[in-house]
Amino acid sequence: MPKYIIIGGAGFIGSNLISRLLRQTDVSITIVDDLSLGRLDTIDSFLARPDVQFIKADAGDTAGLVRLFRERGPFDTVFHMAANSDIQKSAADPRIEFRNTFMTTFSVLEAMRANGTDKLVFCSTSAIYGDKGGAKVAEASGPYLPISYYGGAKLACEGFISAYAHMNDLTASILRFPNVVGDNATHGVIYDFIKRLKDDPTKLKVLGDGKQRKPYLYVKDLIEAILLVSEKAKQGVGIYNIGVDTNTSVGRIAAIVIEEMGLSDVKLEYTGGKAGWKGDVPLFDYDFTKVAALGWQAHRSSDEAVRMAARAILEQWKP
Amino acid sequence: MPKYIIIGGAGFIGSNLISRLLRQTDVSITIVDDLSLGRLDTIDSFLARPDVQFIKADAGDTAGLVRLFRERGPFDTVFHMAANSDIQKSAADPRIEFRNTFMTTFSVLEAMRANGTDKLVFCSTSAIYGDKGGAKVAEASGPYLPISYYGGAKLACEGFISAYAHMNDLTASILRFPNVVGDNATHGVIYDFIKRLKDDPTKLKVLGDGKQRKPYLYVKDLIEAILLVSEKAKQGVGIYNIGVDTNTSVGRIAAIVIEEMGLSDVKLEYTGGKAGWKGDVPLFDYDFTKVAALGWQAHRSSDEAVRMAARAILEQWKP
Repeated sequence: MPKYIIIGGAGFIGSNLISRLLRQTDVSITIVDDLSLGRLDTIDSFLARPDVQFIKADAGDTAGLVRLFRERGPFDTVFHMAANSDIQKSAADPRIEFRNTFMTTFSVLEAMRANGTDKLVFCSTSAIYGDKGGAKVAEASGPYLPISYYGGAKLACEGFISAYAHMNDLTASILRFPNVVGDNATHGVIYDFIKRLKDDPTKLKVLGDGKQRKPYLYVKDLIEAILLVSEKAKQGVGIYNIGVDTNTSVGRIAAIVIEEMGLSDVKLEYTGGKAGWKGDVPLFDYDFTKVAALGWQAHRSSDEAVRMAARAILEQWKP
Repeated sequence: MPKYIIIGGAGFIGSNLISRLLRQTDVSITIVDDLSLGRLDTIDSFLARPDVQFIKADAGDTAGLVRLFRERGPFDTVFHMAANSDIQKSAADPRIEFRNTFMTTFSVLEAMRANGTDKLVFCSTSAIYGDKGGAKVAEASGPYLPISYYGGAKLACEGFISAYAHMNDLTASILRFPNVVGDNATHGVIYDFIKRLKDDPTKLKVLGDGKQRKPYLYVKDLIEAILLVSEKAKQGVGIYNIGVDTNTSVGRIAAIVIEEMGLSDVKLEYTGGKAGWKGDVPLFDYDFTKVAALGWQAHRSSDEAVRMAARAILEQWKP
């Protein structure tokens, strides 16, 4: 019976992963989350199951996580999804990334080393590349020059993961992906737009000029990538770009959200300028050859992902 | 009057840098070192000078370093040389790299952010690349897959430096270099050989088969590179490979040391095998095009560097 531990399991991606893992009949799942960003209601439908254990704990507390792994491990696979996912928030205080993104990873690695757990799946980010000016970026495209604290902290995690993998014969998969959208999202542009339009359905403030385009990956597509990469992983470090080769402008997101909410005559107020905020990469294009060779590709286009995410968030917010 | 702060200034590279900076007449130098690896005797000849201040402090203590920068800064340039430099030691306990290599860097960045100091020179390492199987490695040659905790921690530092540089408009220079040898070395193969031969001049244990070759850079060559890169630095992140395009086998190092010590009939005992220890990169070849374009190259070959280092260490050890 596979024994999984999901760090950050009550968060956006974690809760979607658990939902998918529970389609297996014979499985043991330990969920660790400090509920700082994650929410119990994303996983409460699973908590009554005998094969699911939830532990409220801060994974950034190294000694605590080492103890937890000693008591409950070893695990077959650690899925590490805990991180600060709100780039704009940490822009004002990089210590958030240090604590919630970097230290959680360091603790996971120390817990694995102390306990003999040797398989890790790590959610990294396309933000580790930094601003490549729109050039096609493959996994080997250095130098990695992240421009946000979030990207910097994730690259820091990758450095330690690579070293721990070699020194302890781990099997480590690193997935680098851009914006993910869908059910259980706790923030992000779609979430923000819906929130603002619920407050005032007559107008919508949009950062930038509305023309900024980004690829949006649907969370269920990401989960399939995570499981496939994990299944095919061999000892050492495997790095994969994950994403979608279409993209969606901010203006188009606004239009999709307005449509899904059944609104009309909404006045769009653009703040102007190019980048949404400092640390944001305005333009990127990723090479997915490596993960495609494993047999994965996104099934939803970026526009479809945005629409499905808008529907999922609206559904969740219904009384 | 330029105002410098050297973190890890009582260490091997730091003390050589200070010696060189003090050739300038009008300068203010603040030295921070916790003396865990650094030694006061490497800098005690400078300490009576009015333009030099020494502060015994652990740079890994973020709050303490932030306070120190607030009280004594801002500085024109931070030279950050504090790190665990003993890769074999941290192989047994990666928390040493976390504390002494990573946390010192995070603290420096936080201190710079709090204090408005905006120029950083950082000593990174060729170990961030990992084992590239002898292929020529330029600064952009990803993926970076460090195989030692030391390399992993240094890559982690680079991630945070890149993010802080962008978010705070810093001028950050990152120098990646391999083995450095010379005056004030606190460890390393030359140091070890001399120590063993002082204990027993009839035989010498050598790890591996003696054929393992590495480039050794003379510390004074490195210091010139550091100063040149720092002088030419522009806002943002500049990454440079620094090194020497010759190399020296372990067997040759043994021969040079034996020669410099005036010994003969020393029995060499090879432990056999290829790599010296886990986490060690057996073969590498670096591209120095970028730093050469700035006008720098090493003036001593790897063999010359080894010989000069052996002489310097023997000189220091004289009663």
